[in-house]
Amino acid sequence: VRRGEFELIDHFFRDAGVARADVLVGIGDDGAVLRPPAGSDLVAVTDTLNEGVHFPAGCDARSVGHRALAVNLSDLAAMGAEPAWALLALTLPAYDESWLEAFTAGFAGLARTHGVALVGGDTTRGPLAVNVQALGFVPAGAGIRRGGAAAGDLLFVSGTPGEAAAGLAIELGEHQATAGAGGPAGAGDGAGAAVDVLRRRFLYPEPRLALGRALRGIASACIDVSDGLLGDLGKLAAASGCGAAVELEQLPISPALLRFAGRPGGERMVLTGGDDYELCFAAPPGRAADVAAAAARCGVPVTAIGALREGAGVELRRAGCPEAFRHGGFDHFAR
Amino acid sequence: VRRGEFELIDHFFRDAGVARADVLVGIGDDGAVLRPPAGSDLVAVTDTLNEGVHFPAGCDARSVGHRALAVNLSDLAAMGAEPAWALLALTLPAYDESWLEAFTAGFAGLARTHGVALVGGDTTRGPLAVNVQALGFVPAGAGIRRGGAAAGDLLFVSGTPGEAAAGLAIELGEHQATAGAGGPAGAGDGAGAAVDVLRRRFLYPEPRLALGRALRGIASACIDVSDGLLGDLGKLAAASGCGAAVELEQLPISPALLRFAGRPGGERMVLTGGDDYELCFAAPPGRAADVAAAAARCGVPVTAIGALREGAGVELRRAGCPEAFRHGGFDHFAR
Repeated sequence: VRRGEFELIDHFFRDAGVARADVLVGIGDDGAVLRPPAGSDLVAVTDTLNEGVHFPAGCDARSVGHRALAVNLSDLAAMGAEPAWALLALTLPAYDESWLEAFTAGFAGLARTHGVALVGGDTTRGPLAVNVQALGFVPAGAGIRRGGAAAGDLLFVSGTPGEAAAGLAIELGEHQATAGAGGPAGAGDGAGAAVDVLRRRFLYPEPRLALGRALRGIASACIDVSDGLLGDLGKLAAASGCGAAVELEQLPISPALLRFAGRPGGERMVLTGGDDYELCFAAPPGRAADVAAAAARCGVPVTAIGALREGAGVELRRAGCPEAFRHGGFDHFAR
Repeated sequence: VRRGEFELIDHFFRDAGVARADVLVGIGDDGAVLRPPAGSDLVAVTDTLNEGVHFPAGCDARSVGHRALAVNLSDLAAMGAEPAWALLALTLPAYDESWLEAFTAGFAGLARTHGVALVGGDTTRGPLAVNVQALGFVPAGAGIRRGGAAAGDLLFVSGTPGEAAAGLAIELGEHQATAGAGGPAGAGDGAGAAVDVLRRRFLYPEPRLALGRALRGIASACIDVSDGLLGDLGKLAAASGCGAAVELEQLPISPALLRFAGRPGGERMVLTGGDDYELCFAAPPGRAADVAAAAARCGVPVTAIGALREGAGVELRRAGCPEAFRHGGFDHFAR
């Protein structure tokens, strides 16, 4: 029996998510038929991972499967949406059963964590690329946008961005070159554990879905940090018609990142490293306590890093003084 | 000003579809926020076109843009759905403004014809690939499936399949090799016009959306013919738990295809040629008049080509006798 693309999809992907009662027709027809809940808006996102661009050639297939879904769920998180359904368009250079098994395990594990059903897919032959589109819901009118913030709103970021960029550098074997004041990562007490933390942050990012939902009605604007905090914050500010000021001393730099890259290198990775999938958001000063409560309820650390202001552009400040920084965010066509 | 991926998406894709009141947030945020109509089911489809697999390297960008949307709208048509929204994930080897302009024109032209809004996108760098996902609606419970038919139901196909395969052969410069009884295409009266018809059928397929909607409540099962009539009919029959019998003499072979490939070659192209995006569907014998009326209302020719029957597999018949045919449908991994 030859195993063609259709059997392939069936075999690997039929159970790669949860079963949901709102899926009337799932994988195996020309399209999925889905029943949206009444009174909700639909949120639709799509993101592609290409080998050699978004992940290193030869990257662990389980991580590729996890990340392909995670980057999309992160976009839903930034909109405050609850995820429901996903479609997967996979381009493979050749049929590789063990790769597919690991890929599916990575995808399915995250899908189950967040209650996502895989409802359709398409497998084609070509250079390895994974496109996922994810669909979710918000109560009608409750979607959080990039452009809803105003000058004076405080700026926050979840978690500890920069770690994923360090993890990618480790994956690529570049870590000796960027080792910071604490000495080369991998040497000395705790360095191995730090390396593991950083690698895991690149390979298995956790989309901040609970936090995104908790921020409905609190955040005035939100974006996920996929291309670097500086660049993504710049987009939030521009969409809101504002400038932004970031206090460098307030940036959350994790112990693992400090050990890996030192303070200046860590700051640079926080500002420009991609692949974190944390949330960067704004809220009026009067809602700071609500932000803290939402973060605590979700068990996600959230740090105030500055504020929006009149004007345009992102200013970096240290001890109250502006500090120059020339490197922008991640851009596939610019580097 | 460097033109990065984000500016690129904005510039080319912001007006690449119609404006719809049910789009609350479109291109330019982390996700699109959409308001589905009450009482409808959502139909979600996705399909990818890879250069060198689904279209020849160097294929006209306007055709690539048209086809990337058309193949998805065809899946919606097969479900009986009305299209509404699309997302586009484009992978490009390099920034190429004239290519993007032509691509966008092809995509936008078809989007406007069918009232589709482009609500989101993602542009990445890599080997040329276009993934589209399209979302549409059917009245709750009215989606047409592949698996709803029964033995005894009549089988129909819309239009004149096989022409797109001939058009692709012409695009690839293979047409001398496959020229049929009428002599090589391109020679003689009307041959040039036939070549134009066939090329156009490959480059600019027209998804059968009006017919799909008109078949709600009439067709017992439906599939779009993307991978060859024989293979796709086989999937419809298998999903319905039936076999099928096709009367070869009833196959609709267009004058252009006859001229290009002759009768035996034309039959082979109808049965196994991909890229037609016609609808193959079943209906109970008592609904044959309704099928004809629906087809006439839509201005789409529909031909009865056989029937479903007990058992499994697709039997080809000529003058009442079974005829062997070994070549299956199109399969990316098998060829």
